[in-house]
Amino acid sequence: MGAFVSGGAGFIGANLVARLIAEGGCVVAADNFVRGSRRHLAGFDGHPRFCLVEADLATSKGCAAAFEAADRFGPIETVWHLAANSDIAAGLADPRIDLRDTFMTTFEILGQMRRIGARRLIFASSSAVYGDFGEVELHEDIGPLTPISNYGAMKLASEAQACAAVEDFLEQALLLRFPNVIGSPSTHGVIFDFVRRLRDEPAVLRVMGDGTQRKPYLHVSELIEAMVLARDKAPGGVHAYNIGPSDIGVTVALIAQCVADRVSPTARLEFGDGPRGWVGDVPRFRYSIERIARLGWAPRLSSRQAVSRAIDEIIRQDGA
Amino acid sequence: MGAFVSGGAGFIGANLVARLIAEGGCVVAADNFVRGSRRHLAGFDGHPRFCLVEADLATSKGCAAAFEAADRFGPIETVWHLAANSDIAAGLADPRIDLRDTFMTTFEILGQMRRIGARRLIFASSSAVYGDFGEVELHEDIGPLTPISNYGAMKLASEAQACAAVEDFLEQALLLRFPNVIGSPSTHGVIFDFVRRLRDEPAVLRVMGDGTQRKPYLHVSELIEAMVLARDKAPGGVHAYNIGPSDIGVTVALIAQCVADRVSPTARLEFGDGPRGWVGDVPRFRYSIERIARLGWAPRLSSRQAVSRAIDEIIRQDGA
Repeated sequence: MGAFVSGGAGFIGANLVARLIAEGGCVVAADNFVRGSRRHLAGFDGHPRFCLVEADLATSKGCAAAFEAADRFGPIETVWHLAANSDIAAGLADPRIDLRDTFMTTFEILGQMRRIGARRLIFASSSAVYGDFGEVELHEDIGPLTPISNYGAMKLASEAQACAAVEDFLEQALLLRFPNVIGSPSTHGVIFDFVRRLRDEPAVLRVMGDGTQRKPYLHVSELIEAMVLARDKAPGGVHAYNIGPSDIGVTVALIAQCVADRVSPTARLEFGDGPRGWVGDVPRFRYSIERIARLGWAPRLSSRQAVSRAIDEIIRQDGA
Repeated sequence: MGAFVSGGAGFIGANLVARLIAEGGCVVAADNFVRGSRRHLAGFDGHPRFCLVEADLATSKGCAAAFEAADRFGPIETVWHLAANSDIAAGLADPRIDLRDTFMTTFEILGQMRRIGARRLIFASSSAVYGDFGEVELHEDIGPLTPISNYGAMKLASEAQACAAVEDFLEQALLLRFPNVIGSPSTHGVIFDFVRRLRDEPAVLRVMGDGTQRKPYLHVSELIEAMVLARDKAPGGVHAYNIGPSDIGVTVALIAQCVADRVSPTARLEFGDGPRGWVGDVPRFRYSIERIARLGWAPRLSSRQAVSRAIDEIIRQDGA
């Protein structure tokens, strides 16, 4: 039985596809190539257990076409749903972006899963569903969930729709709540952004917010381990799992300094005002990862180690 | 400053409109007249402080037209968002119904509120956002919320989108989680349904599920009091409030018997299997109403009294 990976040509998607193929699986990846890229999956061109489909999964027609293509490739048991808008700030300026790319993709994919009889959904949810709990440790059953970005709202909406689908036809929905995930092939995010900007303008790096925003960062390699473990060990039904490092994270100021040290050591760092990078930015959060730990997963890297490794990779990825 | 009532010609909407006009307010009601009816608001035809707009609020165009009409009538400060699909079972058969009528109405209304600068949203949410907690008392901060119907999922999605809007532009979003609300002018629901069916076929009343489903019922007159009180007393920001009777509710079997006693005393009651009326039906729930009680609201009727009163009203409404 095969796997369908939505957003399969994106940053996390490409890492997941590589892992699923390496373990012997059949994989259909679908992507609209807005942030994702065929380059990320070029290593699997012509691979007999791999199929790449260009599709806009947010539309009824596009999603149906993608699942029809998948169906021709072989039966799909598990859908890994990673497709989403990944630019939170853009989603606040225009709520339709998250409606379409973050929620409607989920809605349409669930409709197709119902149609073809796929029974397992593994959903890339987010710490953004919680909203701003400040220093309170976030465990999966905490409430109320009050997302402060349209991105978080549409991730929560997706979780809700998946819950209802379990009552109806799904056997399992795993709601994996990702923290900030970093590594390569990066397409967006704070490190990617800092590297780009320092290369364009080596003298100064302007940071949104006052730099005190502090978040947990997870390296994508560890995320993929956690996702696969959840697939293998989680019970049926609906289950949310936080996935993250075991520390409370690092500040944006530290990331900026680390990137500058590597890309442009003489750069001056300039900070904005206030603890939030933008409306909808949760300035700090602290994750409980006890539940996924009970399944047998533990992160090996700290946030700081993950950041350091991701900086190296992103610098290499862009060409040094 | 005026109020906009979406779903204003529906069962709860018509009661709310009457109350807002009685207290001296300017009211624009919008409805698609699928379940709502002009008849319900006929008493306000030509009233100088009332305006009724036919609109499909789930579409960008329809919603914009409704708010443009409202804007011509006068400035809108508060939006009471009641428009939704009210047929939970229909929404399970076709998830697009709740997507459109329960969620897209919220999405489009928030977009219009942002455009015109309306700052207060009072949202008709639902006990269905909780999912099935069995006998656990539902307080507003309980988690995780795992709705088991698309209706509940899209109410939760609406709550999430409202949370994000408060971070962006709203001053206040009150998420009023309604139980089963009964009374007149009823357009749907268990009592309405039983009355109709016994009139069509007086000899037998077939009940979905085994009749042991037990839920709290609130009379619409008490709901309206609670809604107005929340408007007057709740603080700014995002706040969820359960609204319901103080008891654990009555069973469907009891309601069936009460309706039969009034409409067709010799009717035989036939029950289905299992505790759920349909997929997505939460068979029993128990509400904590402490939070709204702290604002100063208390229900006067028990679930049983509310049912009894609603039966009388619905029988009268249809013509005896």
